[in-house]
Amino acid sequence: MSKLDTASYKGVRDFYPEDQFIQNYIFKVWRKVLERYGYEEYGASILEPADLYKAKSGDEIVNEQTYTFIDRGDREVTLRPEMTPTVARMVAAKRRELGFPLRWYSIPNLFRYEAPQRGRLREHWQLNADIFGVKGVEADIEIIVIAYEIMKAFGAKDEDFEIQINDRSLIENHLRNQGVSEENINAARQLIDKKKKIPNFEEEMKKLVGKDIDLVMFPTERINQILTGLEFSGIKNARFESTLVRGFDYYSGMVFEVFDTDETNSRSMFGGGRYDNLTSMFSEDAVPGVGFGSGDVVLKDFLETHNLLPEKRSRTDLFLCLKDIDVESVVAFHKLAASLRDAGLNVATDQSGKEKGDLYKVAEKHNTPFIGFVESDKVVVKNMATREELETNFDEAETIKNFTK
Amino acid sequence: MSKLDTASYKGVRDFYPEDQFIQNYIFKVWRKVLERYGYEEYGASILEPADLYKAKSGDEIVNEQTYTFIDRGDREVTLRPEMTPTVARMVAAKRRELGFPLRWYSIPNLFRYEAPQRGRLREHWQLNADIFGVKGVEADIEIIVIAYEIMKAFGAKDEDFEIQINDRSLIENHLRNQGVSEENINAARQLIDKKKKIPNFEEEMKKLVGKDIDLVMFPTERINQILTGLEFSGIKNARFESTLVRGFDYYSGMVFEVFDTDETNSRSMFGGGRYDNLTSMFSEDAVPGVGFGSGDVVLKDFLETHNLLPEKRSRTDLFLCLKDIDVESVVAFHKLAASLRDAGLNVATDQSGKEKGDLYKVAEKHNTPFIGFVESDKVVVKNMATREELETNFDEAETIKNFTK
Repeated sequence: MSKLDTASYKGVRDFYPEDQFIQNYIFKVWRKVLERYGYEEYGASILEPADLYKAKSGDEIVNEQTYTFIDRGDREVTLRPEMTPTVARMVAAKRRELGFPLRWYSIPNLFRYEAPQRGRLREHWQLNADIFGVKGVEADIEIIVIAYEIMKAFGAKDEDFEIQINDRSLIENHLRNQGVSEENINAARQLIDKKKKIPNFEEEMKKLVGKDIDLVMFPTERINQILTGLEFSGIKNARFESTLVRGFDYYSGMVFEVFDTDETNSRSMFGGGRYDNLTSMFSEDAVPGVGFGSGDVVLKDFLETHNLLPEKRSRTDLFLCLKDIDVESVVAFHKLAASLRDAGLNVATDQSGKEKGDLYKVAEKHNTPFIGFVESDKVVVKNMATREELETNFDEAETIKNFTK
Repeated sequence: MSKLDTASYKGVRDFYPEDQFIQNYIFKVWRKVLERYGYEEYGASILEPADLYKAKSGDEIVNEQTYTFIDRGDREVTLRPEMTPTVARMVAAKRRELGFPLRWYSIPNLFRYEAPQRGRLREHWQLNADIFGVKGVEADIEIIVIAYEIMKAFGAKDEDFEIQINDRSLIENHLRNQGVSEENINAARQLIDKKKKIPNFEEEMKKLVGKDIDLVMFPTERINQILTGLEFSGIKNARFESTLVRGFDYYSGMVFEVFDTDETNSRSMFGGGRYDNLTSMFSEDAVPGVGFGSGDVVLKDFLETHNLLPEKRSRTDLFLCLKDIDVESVVAFHKLAASLRDAGLNVATDQSGKEKGDLYKVAEKHNTPFIGFVESDKVVVKNMATREELETNFDEAETIKNFTK
């Protein structure tokens, strides 16, 4: 029989324990910061009706970039490409019971069907944080403060990143004031979003709207309030950026992005904004929302570049090996392992009877900090890093525990 | 514009914070028990090449019960229906580097395309725990001990569940010895797996293999070793069950299942077994494996029935509300919130100026244990359960923290 390939599906990742360790670290920091600000975790399935994305996500995203298929019950189903429509659906469904201000976060995996490239895979995990039910500027400020606090919690310095802020309404009104017709506003905005990637931007814009457009804009009163609020919160690396747009069609007010300031890798890392009309897809009484999403792939790149990733530690404290194998010693061996676990240690065992050298190698490969050998009636425990040893008896679980601290 | 439905896709669940709380509780208990035994967490994508399931999962599962579609690159891709083929693929890919015994666990979400019913949804989460590289009976014993410890960690009593144990080779040899041909062994085994659901089982079996088959079998030496090992570990609710089979084709030795003993709801809750040949799908040198999978939906039903689910607690300690809104008080208010967060409290804020009664209702809906009101230069913090109050100043973050303990 021919052998199957061990590669994962194209553009997705396997998480070996060393990768999962990093993933868990990232999730833990995200959770901690969000919970400090009173956000509660929610979740949902990756499967959503395709209609959910057709109304508001932006044409390119739905038509060219999603995994969408027809199920056997003839339903058109999409692997969610983003979480905001899902959370809007959930909030709309229970808007009478939930209680506002509502602060929610989730760490969903999302799917995009596009050619994999640095920082963009077909599946990634994304922190989503949102406040619902607050029209006031305090919610815009809080969301940006949290984005900032997350960067700091990962160890980033102020000079490593910059927060750029704009308002969707500013750019849309500015285009209107220069005579861009309503039907061209969306397309013009999307063109500005790609300004840096388009070499002949001015030409393209003229072709679209029929005239030269200037992009000199000044911050609105609301943007200034946000900037003042951030200043009061001690944030010095935020500024107004008139051409900041963001891709999703549903943003209706403030938008922001966090940029990596590294000269060789300057780029947008994540961002978000205000979307006051999204729940009106589901019901007449719209609930205002403001939030952001931050992906694990881009973040991990950033942390690697800045040497901010923690070193892998094993959750296992001790690899306990049995050398003399007969029925009695096996029973005593497992009793010892059980009493060590009861004392609070995480213990993996081995009774293969392999050579000590081979067992050391296993402990090294697994990053286990301590190895123990049980022979007749004694236990020798060794610190893998310092080579320090403890020799003791079977009934000394506490002594062993203290040695491994 | 017509409104979109707020329902989730058929057969999957939304996790509102009260649901996510239960989910997180279940995951936490799983993680804790597995890590006690030295298991390390791994992960993978839900997207897998469809070929991965065609060889070994059992025909019914692949052909009738999976979400499989063709992607735009003409690849046949499946939403994983189970985790074992994925972990076998990952182990086979790095078998020279990993180090054995290898203890791994994961909590993947899995997809089955079948009519939703009690305990079986289209998407569920499943703890998967496996040991690789150990042929000896100690690995079979450890896996069953862990299944038992998990039930205990959730608060189940010995009489609430029973562990049934068998060996695939016993049943297959028994069929062979009675003259069942090799080509009928798999089908006969699958028929025995459904014995309880088939009213005319004897007739069906005779139709399949051409003769009457007796099902009287006695435990093998290995099964007796496992039962003895479990007894030494203090497990009293395990027994041999000769007709236990389990669905997947890849099991090659010990199989076990944990049954709910409740009279009104007696059923298999979860199980696993030994699969020594699965990695041979990928490479010549097979790595022996033994493990189990336990799903969240069935477990949650069990915990609900036995009244073992914890009550929802909020991760947020304090809902802090500002009453007098001017620039100065807003700044002082956020400074107070920040100092409370620095003292270790999780604090949500409100500066809507809503009535106190409305703000109490929000705290109640969110299960927040404390509410605080900031008025001019004082803070009043109230215990939502006891109605006890603390009145203090802005610079008393520690006093407030102690009150909320």
